[in-house]
Amino acid sequence: MRRAAYPYVQTIPTRWMDNDVYGHVNNVTYYSYFDTVINTWLIREGGLDIHAGGQIGLCAESHCRFLAPIEFPQIVQAGLRVEKLGRSSVRYGIGLFIEGGEAAVAEGWFVHVFVDRATRLAVPVGDAMRAALTRLL
Amino acid sequence: MRRAAYPYVQTIPTRWMDNDVYGHVNNVTYYSYFDTVINTWLIREGGLDIHAGGQIGLCAESHCRFLAPIEFPQIVQAGLRVEKLGRSSVRYGIGLFIEGGEAAVAEGWFVHVFVDRATRLAVPVGDAMRAALTRLL
Amino acid sequence: MRRAAYPYVQTIPTRWMDNDVYGHVNNVTYYSYFDTVINTWLIREGGLDIHAGGQIGLCAESHCRFLAPIEFPQIVQAGLRVEKLGRSSVRYGIGLFIEGGEAAVAEGWFVHVFVDRATRLAVPVGDAMRAALTRLL
Amino acid sequence: MRRAAYPYVQTIPTRWMDNDVYGHVNNVTYYSYFDTVINTWLIREGGLDIHAGGQIGLCAESHCRFLAPIEFPQIVQAGLRVEKLGRSSVRYGIGLFIEGGEAAVAEGWFVHVFVDRATRLAVPVGDAMRAALTRLL
Repeated sequence: MRRAAYPYVQTIPTRWMDNDVYGHVNNVTYYSYFDTVINTWLIREGGLDIHAGGQIGLCAESHCRFLAPIEFPQIVQAGLRVEKLGRSSVRYGIGLFIEGGEAAVAEGWFVHVFVDRATRLAVPVGDAMRAALTRLL
Repeated sequence: MRRAAYPYVQTIPTRWMDNDVYGHVNNVTYYSYFDTVINTWLIREGGLDIHAGGQIGLCAESHCRFLAPIEFPQIVQAGLRVEKLGRSSVRYGIGLFIEGGEAAVAEGWFVHVFVDRATRLAVPVGDAMRAALTRLL
Repeated sequence: MRRAAYPYVQTIPTRWMDNDVYGHVNNVTYYSYFDTVINTWLIREGGLDIHAGGQIGLCAESHCRFLAPIEFPQIVQAGLRVEKLGRSSVRYGIGLFIEGGEAAVAEGWFVHVFVDRATRLAVPVGDAMRAALTRLL
Repeated sequence: MRRAAYPYVQTIPTRWMDNDVYGHVNNVTYYSYFDTVINTWLIREGGLDIHAGGQIGLCAESHCRFLAPIEFPQIVQAGLRVEKLGRSSVRYGIGLFIEGGEAAVAEGWFVHVFVDRATRLAVPVGDAMRAALTRLL
């Protein structure tokens, strides 16, 4: 999918240590771009309080298809959308782009289950968070 | 799947910085356990030369289901098996276990495409590597 | 200093992504070996409760001299000793060795200040922790 | 030192996994901000070719004083200057700032030795690189 398919796009510069021995950003690091764009949005738009909030999002499943290499010092743009919003879980779609490029270099998805911070049992997505997630559908 | 389903099992101690703000190993880090067990085995058993070998394995796709938390300083055991061995690609199955536990805390898969180091075009899996991968089928 | 200079030694296998584009473990990652050996010891011997304990150790200063490369899949042995134990702080000395090698590949130090978890103000090192740290002097 | 003491300043957004269990950016990650600002500058201004260039910079020593916490999703600004430029080595000074803040949250230094890529023996800093480094003195 193209960048316009993602309602929220965040710029994430690569770091020196993102590159692995083959000279490109390691596959693992793509997932750190995923949870960075997701959590930035949850904090800024959905009111997630990572230190003291009563409900937090835990990753239940994730997936990535790697379409083209990224390499330091390129700048990544991570696009985020919501593919499915359930009672206590959400599935995001993420597309990674190189700054200035139109074709995605990776596409993935990521499932958050919202849980009570103390019990770690699933809870319904709170109202403010649900409103914010709905804007990405 | 249980540990016995994986022909190769490697011990990977957690590190302090694996834990994230919620007190458990971050989802991203699970994938670093995946490519550590895979590449250790390719180097030790399949003759992969990461510095100068003519063919290298690039990640084309990966996936993980997170079943239970891991936390520092627990010790992880990563089980590896080959689910599908093609002409120039291989799909691994990986199970993560806590040392002493029998149930997987995560299950995932990972696809390597073997390419020529210089051209990055797909090449048939070399004989020594194929023999090593076959042992994990 | 040689390995025998360190009363506590912990084995830390390298990971695939520890290597950087130059083919060796990235300088940053050496520090993750430092805080892994330190915190493992604090948890196992000093009673540090990273989730709920009243006092935690924060890094105030660290330093490393890089003497020789490390590369995946080598296995690191991290030696730990206490160089100075103050009222609310401790300075550790750390030496990194390749498994089977006698000469340190890196030497560093690291200062922890113990603080109250809530106020983040310095507090005297607790009795159990002090006893454990004293054994590394 | 204040931001104005650093001739080059680069913006580095924090990532979700930078935070550790105590809720702030892990000490190790500060060093990844150091080598990111250094290498970005070497590549963009000094002509460093990390894939094929004849000379590369290896870290010989590094140091950091941690003055205040950083936490995701804050945005870091990393200031860089050259403190000493020798025949084949350079010592950088780095200051980290939170976007919008005037006081450094960390101050450190980092020594690069320039070596021949193949032999890993020290070589004189090349002319283009020296000119670029001189602009940061």
